Amino acid sequence: MDNVVDFINMNRDRYLEELKALLAIPSVSALPVHAPDVRRCAEWVADEMRRIGLQNVQLHETAGNPVVYGDWLGAPGAPTMLFYGHYDVQPVDPLDLWESPPFEGTVRDGELYARGSADDKGQVFMHFKALEAWLRQNGRLPINVKLIIEGEEEVGSDNLDEFVRTHKRELAADVVVISDSPMFDRGVPSICYGLRGLAYFQIDLRGTKSDLHSGSFGGAVANPAFVLAQMIAQMKDRGGRIKVPGFYDDVRALTDAEREEFKKLPFNETRFRKDLGAPKLMGETGYSTLERVWGRPTLEVNGLLSGFTGDGAKTVIPAVAMAKISMRLVPDQDPAKIADQFEKWVWKIAPKTMELKFTRMHGGKPWMTSFDNAFVQAAGRAIERGFGKSPVFTREGGSIPVVSTFQEELGLPSVLFGVGLPDENAHAPNERIDLGNFYNGIIASAYFYEELAGVTV
Amino acid sequence: MDNVVDFINMNRDRYLEELKALLAIPSVSALPVHAPDVRRCAEWVADEMRRIGLQNVQLHETAGNPVVYGDWLGAPGAPTMLFYGHYDVQPVDPLDLWESPPFEGTVRDGELYARGSADDKGQVFMHFKALEAWLRQNGRLPINVKLIIEGEEEVGSDNLDEFVRTHKRELAADVVVISDSPMFDRGVPSICYGLRGLAYFQIDLRGTKSDLHSGSFGGAVANPAFVLAQMIAQMKDRGGRIKVPGFYDDVRALTDAEREEFKKLPFNETRFRKDLGAPKLMGETGYSTLERVWGRPTLEVNGLLSGFTGDGAKTVIPAVAMAKISMRLVPDQDPAKIADQFEKWVWKIAPKTMELKFTRMHGGKPWMTSFDNAFVQAAGRAIERGFGKSPVFTREGGSIPVVSTFQEELGLPSVLFGVGLPDENAHAPNERIDLGNFYNGIIASAYFYEELAGVTV
Repeated sequence: MDNVVDFINMNRDRYLEELKALLAIPSVSALPVHAPDVRRCAEWVADEMRRIGLQNVQLHETAGNPVVYGDWLGAPGAPTMLFYGHYDVQPVDPLDLWESPPFEGTVRDGELYARGSADDKGQVFMHFKALEAWLRQNGRLPINVKLIIEGEEEVGSDNLDEFVRTHKRELAADVVVISDSPMFDRGVPSICYGLRGLAYFQIDLRGTKSDLHSGSFGGAVANPAFVLAQMIAQMKDRGGRIKVPGFYDDVRALTDAEREEFKKLPFNETRFRKDLGAPKLMGETGYSTLERVWGRPTLEVNGLLSGFTGDGAKTVIPAVAMAKISMRLVPDQDPAKIADQFEKWVWKIAPKTMELKFTRMHGGKPWMTSFDNAFVQAAGRAIERGFGKSPVFTREGGSIPVVSTFQEELGLPSVLFGVGLPDENAHAPNERIDLGNFYNGIIASAYFYEELAGVTV
Repeated sequence: MDNVVDFINMNRDRYLEELKALLAIPSVSALPVHAPDVRRCAEWVADEMRRIGLQNVQLHETAGNPVVYGDWLGAPGAPTMLFYGHYDVQPVDPLDLWESPPFEGTVRDGELYARGSADDKGQVFMHFKALEAWLRQNGRLPINVKLIIEGEEEVGSDNLDEFVRTHKRELAADVVVISDSPMFDRGVPSICYGLRGLAYFQIDLRGTKSDLHSGSFGGAVANPAFVLAQMIAQMKDRGGRIKVPGFYDDVRALTDAEREEFKKLPFNETRFRKDLGAPKLMGETGYSTLERVWGRPTLEVNGLLSGFTGDGAKTVIPAVAMAKISMRLVPDQDPAKIADQFEKWVWKIAPKTMELKFTRMHGGKPWMTSFDNAFVQAAGRAIERGFGKSPVFTREGGSIPVVSTFQEELGLPSVLFGVGLPDENAHAPNERIDLGNFYNGIIASAYFYEELAGVTV
């Protein structure tokens, strides 16, 4: 392994330039205008897989964006790792808040800023470089690997599920490895054992066929922006508890053991609040901040639009109002059941003054694994070797819906080994990755493959 | 008078073409980008005043857009009419809902479509043509006239008040005439004796310094879009009553006589609802639709903006949320007092999780006059001659803030004689004016000047 680590350390500058080239492709899956960029990015990833020595590289077409596949299967008898990542990224608006262009990787204070630097291009690339180092120095890997890098993670991975279902034999493996989550804190490498799920909706109200003069008509008709506000306000109580009937029915309670573990973590609530620039933290009554984010479901308004939103004053009663509403779910909530409950309730609370359009955008199941899984333990040892300290075990508030798919369709456990930062701005302006973590992550990944080789399967 | 009426009837085609030229100037006062168009429009109006034979025409500069002044004072001993109108127009968004370009006057089914066709360029132009006909045919007017056409009516007439206050002597007159309101219905010419006032605000909330990933942070912080919805929902109760403390203190109750008059008007609530495309009408409990629009104050959300509003799903907790909120006021509510009450209450209901910015946009006082005023009666006779039927007396839900200014600063009664249509879309796409009403309005205006000549002052 020493020669692998030496190779990695000697190639840092090249890695950075290569990663910048990947980050320069604006593969925003949520915006149709970027469709050609998304495809270009898939092709870049496939080319890179070939460059580093993977085999059977190909773009699998789907009903949406292609899945890039590559493998190396020259270690008979050794375990097989199925690595999952995504090459698509979040939109970049509001653009004016970026301190450097989102698709121009820029290093400031040891951190690389760009959309996708942490979520997930940077972390996918970390594995590419670990695999490359093994193959260049030893001509082989200690394990078998299959990689699938998809292009729809930021829009719900709708077609990946189908791809996995229809390629079960080709994807057969012993463990799934995913690097798409932050570490607990700077200097505190982590392994994540739980993720929240997602259910995302759009609510559109129409009150009249066109916008109306608020003088000539104000008082005679319901205002869709006001009605939307009334409806949203009913969704949570003052204590932050979601009021959709049945919403908490399947929520698995945090165990006392988990709550004790969370309390021991080096979490500074004041620093957390100040980093976010929030005047005051706020969440569900009866839970700590970590418990709220990792172990409790939430409901958020992701967007609101109605009427006149430019500078100045326009005295209009809007014809329509729109809200994007999403929920983060925890084990054992089911996104489809939650969607049914929510839709039924929204139709119930919508007044007869409005035409309602309710749209289900996408959903993903929550997930949890156990710490004592042999692969999780192997990851823990690799992190200790790469970062010089043992990891903490955490949950994550975000969603990686395919983790549940791998569990259900392939019967595989997942190891979530992420090197992002908690303040990496994954879905906001000025997304970044710490270059120290990036380089240590490459080394830890290389060790991880060696540790995985020792797991009896 | 016959020669005046003949002249008007013979020049209809020319009037239409000239009006289209005026409507082609996008004098949108709310949008800074249109500042040059606003000025160009003021100059067009001044040129037109000179063309039709008015004297002392000039642009009075203000801190904002110029007031165009012109007069004809050759009837010593006769009453003096101060005519007020505005050459600025509302914004045109959403542009895609216009069936023909908003600044290209287009006739369909006897109606002229364009922004400003009804509010207020078309109605100002109606008086220009009545004055022109008198001057061309008789070389004189039966009364003295002073015209002020301003460019900030759609943004609160902030500088007109100052202009009136500082030009009291120059503006001395016997009556103010304004044509900036719709008739009650097609075929039902009207004189308006009451207007609502306005108070307009913007509320901005900030929860965090930037947008956050709803997975990584959802549950830990308050969501400004949700908080804004909660705040807005508190502004009115289920019965449509405004909950701002003290809001109704100065509301003058509708008299039994008024309520009886309103009941007699040919108002078809079903047709009204269907014309608007509203599934169901809704307003303050205990009042009819006309009472709600004409005689009761309202609170409307004019605009909402927060987070991700594009196509697709972005899992973001917005950093900021914005609402534009305005109230229509009735006698004897005072916009400044209402603004104080509202601002104080908004600060009180805003939670500590948010930074609040409260902006007062503009306001205008409500107004009422009495039916038996001699000028109002003269207008009634003129309308009967121009339209062939006597007018009904109505109130209007809109605001013409300067009407109160004329009352207070100049001690003048106002006559509101409008020929717009109730469904003219004054502040919405596809604004229009009925050409029959426009031509009859020119004739009625010409008669009105003659009727005014007979009022003893």
